[in-house]
Amino acid sequence: MNISLIGSGNVATHISLALKSAGHEILSVYSRNLENAKELAVKVGATPTNRLGEIANKSEILIISIKDDAIENLVLELELENILVAHTAGSVPMNVLGRFQNHGVFYPLQTFTKDKNTDFNEVPMLLEANNEPNLSILKKLAESISRKVEQVDSVQRKKVHVAAVFASNFVNYMFSISNAILSKESLSFELFEPLLKETLNKAFQLGPEKAQTGPALRNDTEVIKSHLDLLADDPNKQNLYSLLSSSIFEYYKKK
Amino acid sequence: MNISLIGSGNVATHISLALKSAGHEILSVYSRNLENAKELAVKVGATPTNRLGEIANKSEILIISIKDDAIENLVLELELENILVAHTAGSVPMNVLGRFQNHGVFYPLQTFTKDKNTDFNEVPMLLEANNEPNLSILKKLAESISRKVEQVDSVQRKKVHVAAVFASNFVNYMFSISNAILSKESLSFELFEPLLKETLNKAFQLGPEKAQTGPALRNDTEVIKSHLDLLADDPNKQNLYSLLSSSIFEYYKKK
Repeated sequence: MNISLIGSGNVATHISLALKSAGHEILSVYSRNLENAKELAVKVGATPTNRLGEIANKSEILIISIKDDAIENLVLELELENILVAHTAGSVPMNVLGRFQNHGVFYPLQTFTKDKNTDFNEVPMLLEANNEPNLSILKKLAESISRKVEQVDSVQRKKVHVAAVFASNFVNYMFSISNAILSKESLSFELFEPLLKETLNKAFQLGPEKAQTGPALRNDTEVIKSHLDLLADDPNKQNLYSLLSSSIFEYYKKK
Repeated sequence: MNISLIGSGNVATHISLALKSAGHEILSVYSRNLENAKELAVKVGATPTNRLGEIANKSEILIISIKDDAIENLVLELELENILVAHTAGSVPMNVLGRFQNHGVFYPLQTFTKDKNTDFNEVPMLLEANNEPNLSILKKLAESISRKVEQVDSVQRKKVHVAAVFASNFVNYMFSISNAILSKESLSFELFEPLLKETLNKAFQLGPEKAQTGPALRNDTEVIKSHLDLLADDPNKQNLYSLLSSSIFEYYKKK
């Protein structure tokens, strides 16, 4: 298919590279900043532009991959007909694209980093479209780059996004705290790699509810108290430890 | 080496199986409950007992692998000479074994589950001993089952244990919350497997501080507010989301 992109960040880059290697044609890449547009365009053989009016009108699909809260305003400036317009944002409802006759959502559920390859084949693509024919088109496109394609409506997608904040952003924050504690003891976070891989494996093999262990679950007040004492020099960590421990205990008591 | 074990739970089981396959002799397995002792003893070719006095006195090393807070009392009943006595507990200082001339700690940094195999080769063994010769013995023993052997004193080990609570127990709790949100939408937690694997990879490749992303880090108040609205039916989740988000923002603002 002939595709154009709005955006040149992490998601835009990884998606367009994946589409390109799946044999699609990337016609144009738009960014407000022409240098950024050029940087991505050269990687995927597209024409860079910083004018919305110059987006190739031969494109069959236009993918908008910019910051979530910038989509609504950009869309107001966009004059297009017939092209299927899809955004890639987890937290933005499909209907911000309502002024286009053909629209949908093309959301890759993954955390992307610049200069780090992503196996798109394993990235769940969560799709939505304003009608069946458009859904089919997005499905075909998604299936050309990923084995995991699902239809998810705007409300579900928003819930997925919240759930991902807990399971990825908050989890990474726990890693940061852990790393800070280890660093102070001149111990490397890499020491935790087998433990954390196993934690992940167990969560998927047993389900996270059955996989829960630790002093909070057992309400092992002596260990908890001694941990809180150890964290006395850092009220933020101490406070989080205390709240999470009592939250875990309450959560599992009800089960 | 000739080894005896006190304990028959997850850690005792996985350690004795690993030692056995490394060619060591497990002479006796003690448990207060004889049936439990038998269950493990039969797996490792040892003699089961529920009397502390019957622990084989030919043993060179006695490994105590029972609940952290039960070690101190058990030790008071233990009459042994010469044998090197080591416990496997993360949060218990070495000096609870101070009445034995030869003592130390043999702590495997991993989360163990019954009926799930563990590749001990990858389990960091954190060691401590009351003198150099005993440390050498524990080192030799640890190196026979694992590639990752480190010397860590009681204070460091306790910090490691707190750090592990954040990176494993609290992380799993985040997974539980995430899973609960997805379940309500009839979506499977498996959808998150690629995201969570990548979250882990990034934390180790970039370090967790550089790997942090998400609305809290960007202080994206609109997305945060909409997420809090979505969680309105569950004050516990809402409260955690709010606290963790502001904690992330404050934490990274200082960097």
